[in-house]
Amino acid sequence: MEKTFSQWKKQCLNKLDLSKKGSVDQDIEQVVSLLNSCEEFFTTSSCSGRIILIDGAADSCDVQKQNCVWLFVSHHKCTFDDLISGLSSSSGDAVLKFEPAVLHVQCRRLEDAQLLHSVAINSGFRNSGLTVGKTGKIISAVRSTHSLEVPLSHSGKLLVAHEYIHFLTQVANQKMDENLRRIHRFYQNLQSALSAERPHPPDLSCSQEIQDPQHTQEAERAEREEGEKEERNKTKAYQRRRRKQQRETDGNHDGGNSSPLELDDCVSLFT
Amino acid sequence: MEKTFSQWKKQCLNKLDLSKKGSVDQDIEQVVSLLNSCEEFFTTSSCSGRIILIDGAADSCDVQKQNCVWLFVSHHKCTFDDLISGLSSSSGDAVLKFEPAVLHVQCRRLEDAQLLHSVAINSGFRNSGLTVGKTGKIISAVRSTHSLEVPLSHSGKLLVAHEYIHFLTQVANQKMDENLRRIHRFYQNLQSALSAERPHPPDLSCSQEIQDPQHTQEAERAEREEGEKEERNKTKAYQRRRRKQQRETDGNHDGGNSSPLELDDCVSLFT
Repeated sequence: MEKTFSQWKKQCLNKLDLSKKGSVDQDIEQVVSLLNSCEEFFTTSSCSGRIILIDGAADSCDVQKQNCVWLFVSHHKCTFDDLISGLSSSSGDAVLKFEPAVLHVQCRRLEDAQLLHSVAINSGFRNSGLTVGKTGKIISAVRSTHSLEVPLSHSGKLLVAHEYIHFLTQVANQKMDENLRRIHRFYQNLQSALSAERPHPPDLSCSQEIQDPQHTQEAERAEREEGEKEERNKTKAYQRRRRKQQRETDGNHDGGNSSPLELDDCVSLFT
Repeated sequence: MEKTFSQWKKQCLNKLDLSKKGSVDQDIEQVVSLLNSCEEFFTTSSCSGRIILIDGAADSCDVQKQNCVWLFVSHHKCTFDDLISGLSSSSGDAVLKFEPAVLHVQCRRLEDAQLLHSVAINSGFRNSGLTVGKTGKIISAVRSTHSLEVPLSHSGKLLVAHEYIHFLTQVANQKMDENLRRIHRFYQNLQSALSAERPHPPDLSCSQEIQDPQHTQEAERAEREEGEKEERNKTKAYQRRRRKQQRETDGNHDGGNSSPLELDDCVSLFT
């Protein structure tokens, strides 16, 4: 199994990027690098989130994007002019969509996938879930519920006023902002969770976590979300167990006694 | 483990339905009953899909629906008048959403969850995924990518014309129709997958599957969806293995030799 996972990882990271864009999106690059630097994980696909305008026949777009014409696509914020320009080429039913970040991560063991899943849920990616293959392939999909899907033209005819497109531009950009905050939160939570497995976490800054009111508010908000309680307990249990194992293994390590306690305080802020 | 799962199931099915509605939605009742009749599964929550109109302050609705006012909610189709009437009460930012069916199913073993996950993916529920708890709790979440999310008012002021609301009513209702088709497809595929585990499937109608062009078209369409191929192979492998086990166990059963072949033909239509 160990050998198979390493082989899969090597094979996957060496192969050509077959996405339209051909490279990892800038805003999710840090997360992808962090995951690929861990021996327990490697990413099989990623998208940092995008604003798209697609044109297609009614009833077909939803299920099959490949039959639609892409009028506009951006992995960053968009402008009113971007959308108006894209819409001018519509001859079918154009729909504006915001699609949040998505990440597929192959995990070595089920417990690695569980950790990643907990981090995802705690960071606001509530549509996340695992897929466990018969061949031993374990994929953790990180997905958000965040979306926007607005029909804008029918048979090439614009259905709304320009003022509405202005408003939508703002809404889509706000969603992109929130999406980037979630990616950042995911990165921070992942870093903390991974650090909890090591006696001296190199990048964990407890004081920063405590002083960041935005993060605390978001954590509190996320805390009320249905179904998250159990996920949090799972992360805690996993982390405690891993730290316990770590203490048992590295009992003589300098600072081994105090570090886990500090981590507990810090980890509880977002779990 | 066996005892724990049975206890969980008994406890869950006996407790009060704490949802707003207080009962299982009619359009998903058949699926819920089928799952709960199997000893490998029980449902922990379900929604057949809904059209909702919510009113809230900008930036807050998305993450936390409980701070929003629900102007309208329907688990069936909606009318133009429903939406106009709901919008007349808006004092904040009203958003129309279509939310597809969602189902959470606790599964006895990981392989049961894998089967359910494969059936979900093959039936068009592409955002499905598993959650595996430390206590042995395995949940298979069945979720679709299908959505609609349209901002309609800002600070209580309608942003679009009545003609657009007319158009949106149609779009939302089409999505509800497609959602019901997916629930139906999920039910049929689930029935077939479960029947494949038994020597004489009582409810499996191969000829009906073959003669249903709608089903075949949808199966072909679903087949092109990214990432589904592997899921299909997993279901097949699972089904073949289960049938093999069944043949080995029930080798003397009448018709035991021909049944698996017929099933293979039938199963391959949608996997």
